[in-house]
Amino acid sequence: MNIASIYEPIQQEMARVEESLSRVSQVEPLILSRLLEHVLGDRGKRIRPAIALLCGKLGRGKPELLVPVATAVELLHTATLVHDDAVDNSPTRRGRPTVSATWGDVPAVLLGDYLFATSARITSDLGNLTVMRLFAEAIMTISTGELMERFGAYDWTQGREQYYQRIARKTASLFSLAAEVGAVLSNAPRGEIEAPRRYGYNLGMAFQVVDDILDFIGDEAEMGKPVGSDLAQGTLTLPAIILLERYPEDNLIRGIHPGKQNEGKVQQTIEMISKSHIIEECYQVAADFCSKACQALKDL
Amino acid sequence: MNIASIYEPIQQEMARVEESLSRVSQVEPLILSRLLEHVLGDRGKRIRPAIALLCGKLGRGKPELLVPVATAVELLHTATLVHDDAVDNSPTRRGRPTVSATWGDVPAVLLGDYLFATSARITSDLGNLTVMRLFAEAIMTISTGELMERFGAYDWTQGREQYYQRIARKTASLFSLAAEVGAVLSNAPRGEIEAPRRYGYNLGMAFQVVDDILDFIGDEAEMGKPVGSDLAQGTLTLPAIILLERYPEDNLIRGIHPGKQNEGKVQQTIEMISKSHIIEECYQVAADFCSKACQALKDL
Repeated sequence: MNIASIYEPIQQEMARVEESLSRVSQVEPLILSRLLEHVLGDRGKRIRPAIALLCGKLGRGKPELLVPVATAVELLHTATLVHDDAVDNSPTRRGRPTVSATWGDVPAVLLGDYLFATSARITSDLGNLTVMRLFAEAIMTISTGELMERFGAYDWTQGREQYYQRIARKTASLFSLAAEVGAVLSNAPRGEIEAPRRYGYNLGMAFQVVDDILDFIGDEAEMGKPVGSDLAQGTLTLPAIILLERYPEDNLIRGIHPGKQNEGKVQQTIEMISKSHIIEECYQVAADFCSKACQALKDL
Repeated sequence: MNIASIYEPIQQEMARVEESLSRVSQVEPLILSRLLEHVLGDRGKRIRPAIALLCGKLGRGKPELLVPVATAVELLHTATLVHDDAVDNSPTRRGRPTVSATWGDVPAVLLGDYLFATSARITSDLGNLTVMRLFAEAIMTISTGELMERFGAYDWTQGREQYYQRIARKTASLFSLAAEVGAVLSNAPRGEIEAPRRYGYNLGMAFQVVDDILDFIGDEAEMGKPVGSDLAQGTLTLPAIILLERYPEDNLIRGIHPGKQNEGKVQQTIEMISKSHIIEECYQVAADFCSKACQALKDL
């Protein structure tokens, strides 16, 4: 199954999501419009709106509500990216300069706020308070997950459980939101909401684990950031956790401290991980989450 | 009429708003709870929730909805302050260290997001989609106003109209929101919503004009920031606009540029404004907005 075949049944709706996103940029003042075009024109894979649209086919609800809710999901996601880039001082994302790098942190913070609010504005037109509440709760969960990541930076004692809790909040919650609001708006029966939620959650977990693997073995040009940047920023992810599990004593990672010259240690850690079977093990974890996502689909 | 007499009819509800705000801080993880306590425990005058509660007495709606909506208004306000302090690098607010100064910009941005979301979460329980939409629109308006201020920094050609538009967005919109949602939830008849909205708007305009006056003549210790800091940051406010109107040629203000040694020019501008009748004129503008707010009340 390739990615195009997943998008096939929702091709038309996806095109309407793009139109709807570009309408968001048509506002005054001009500078706001330019900032919005910059972040919304950067077409990624639009995975989250696709999940909302696909799960929107579960019931027999009003299809006209699905394009707006998928748009709102993408706006919420974009808001979190804009704030992330501002707080991380990231120069680029997907090879393009970030808002914070081009216009500064101030516009980035305010643009993120505007995007959150636009997402809420579009959601409020759907006439569904459950959906509104789910959106609000997702932002609370994501920002809590991000806070846990920042305050846990350079704490190399964290284990897998803490890692899973963290990525569940910062990443899987949004996938799970997309799936759930799609299902809710399709009028899927109440008892049938749990399966799409589980589908989104497990897909999101797999997505983040793969993202964290790529930080160790990915292509710098493609990722738009240097290999090992999670570790350099003090963020402990699955490959490094497994390395720490295997070599708990005198592990190089424990010598990585904020503000120090860590390049050598990060480089050596990347090499150790690449030479071991750790990456395969991580892919197996991702595959397990994917299986659970598939199982959730079968349960529908 | 003193301020205590305004709060008198809503004393009980205001105490419940405080309880409700302190419940917001009772969350996991501990660090989030500490950040929330820091920003929510800093009791200001709580003007915005008071406006919501007062306007909530207009109709005969369910009083149990008013404390939550007033809480949500204060949370939204706090979110904007936390983000403002982060982007301004403000060391203190009301004499206490800011979140960004104590914990850094990263937690400040994420905490602001969490507060916006909590405000939306509480609002979604009120069962009123109009109120939800008004909240979302207010955040859009405020962030647009802030963006206009930042991108218009050091542009000394702006006149009064641009200033009023800017402060209407960044400040009056939230006062107007507070008044409107209070009235809507009190089940005030549709035709009677315009007057409270106008009341909030004009009160907010007066509030911001006075705030901008105090930046020139206020007490540094009380304000928790140096006199003239708006001008030093490139923000053009009413007193400076009037000075520019009077002395359009060779005005010192036009020599204030970003990143330059502006202290002398700012100091001299403050002295020129203090010696003139400009401050009185500004207070007159504020008084006019107050009269319009009173007129709106009478129209009820």
